[in-house]
Amino acid sequence: MKVKYPYPMAEEKKILRYQSHGMLFEKALNITNEYYRIHNKAFIYKKPTPVQIVRVDYPARSKARISEAYYRTPSTTDYNGIYRGKYIDFEAKETHNLRFAFKHIFPHQIEHLTNISNHGGIGFVIIYFKKVEEIYLIDIALFNKLLQEGEKGGPKSISLEKARKLGVNVKQGYTPPIDYLKAVDKQYFSV
Amino acid sequence: MKVKYPYPMAEEKKILRYQSHGMLFEKALNITNEYYRIHNKAFIYKKPTPVQIVRVDYPARSKARISEAYYRTPSTTDYNGIYRGKYIDFEAKETHNLRFAFKHIFPHQIEHLTNISNHGGIGFVIIYFKKVEEIYLIDIALFNKLLQEGEKGGPKSISLEKARKLGVNVKQGYTPPIDYLKAVDKQYFSV
Repeated sequence: MKVKYPYPMAEEKKILRYQSHGMLFEKALNITNEYYRIHNKAFIYKKPTPVQIVRVDYPARSKARISEAYYRTPSTTDYNGIYRGKYIDFEAKETHNLRFAFKHIFPHQIEHLTNISNHGGIGFVIIYFKKVEEIYLIDIALFNKLLQEGEKGGPKSISLEKARKLGVNVKQGYTPPIDYLKAVDKQYFSV
Repeated sequence: MKVKYPYPMAEEKKILRYQSHGMLFEKALNITNEYYRIHNKAFIYKKPTPVQIVRVDYPARSKARISEAYYRTPSTTDYNGIYRGKYIDFEAKETHNLRFAFKHIFPHQIEHLTNISNHGGIGFVIIYFKKVEEIYLIDIALFNKLLQEGEKGGPKSISLEKARKLGVNVKQGYTPPIDYLKAVDKQYFSV
């Protein structure tokens, strides 16, 4: 159920919708990472989309034009970098539903995040529930626990309710639009 | 000057040439990283080459075919990941000459590695001198020092001689072909 907020919350909501819902989630995360870099807070980048290049033309001597290529499955996750001296790595997912189905993340991505965590890094999944405009950070250990429950006959997804209960809420704002490092602080650094 | 080695060194050299010289340097590094992952030693990946996609066709419903795209300048470096709980980040360069000219690395890549180092991560440049088949790890702090000397009228490059003296030699072998983490251990972990 959508609740109508009195002004100025309604106005604020509208802007937030522009910033994270209307604006692509990915773009908002990229702007956030740029903000972190400018403020020397963290150096986290989105990895380029992997592309298999089949044919390259040279219409001009110095200009290469790729004329046939295909998308490839990413080896790892979307984002990685360094924060507070720690290696940080995560996958960002959005869902139109009130639950995030496990089938929407590759098993090798979960394995990758698990390896990162086992080696002393920070690994998690960020889930954006579009319908309610809420974002949650789910640590990879918790994610694995829920996944294993699913394999044993439990739910094959993380419901919004469960994310609210077990995940860390990522607040949306203006600068930066998605301040997920606050949630990282809460989950991993007790600050 | 090329020295002729008696057998079996000559044979060994031939294989090494196949593994690192003939085989692309990048490929040898990728195989090395795969070896490290399989042995649960480190999780380091090459980032995909960034491509600006202009046009995508759909010859079949499920198959996307990129029909126009261009290479973009990478935002960061080639490789990053986690090793011994530390964030690790490096750029790999090869040169046909007996010196590596600073102009062959982007200033923003040096800046990136410097940021990583300032935030407690490990940042370096690996230089492969093809002519002599020698590889050296140059820590970013040392790299910056040499770069600044160049800006003050010193050499605008790192000579093989200087790399031999100041860098850490990366030994080539069979499995893995370029065992650069041994050099990392020497430079950063005193093991």
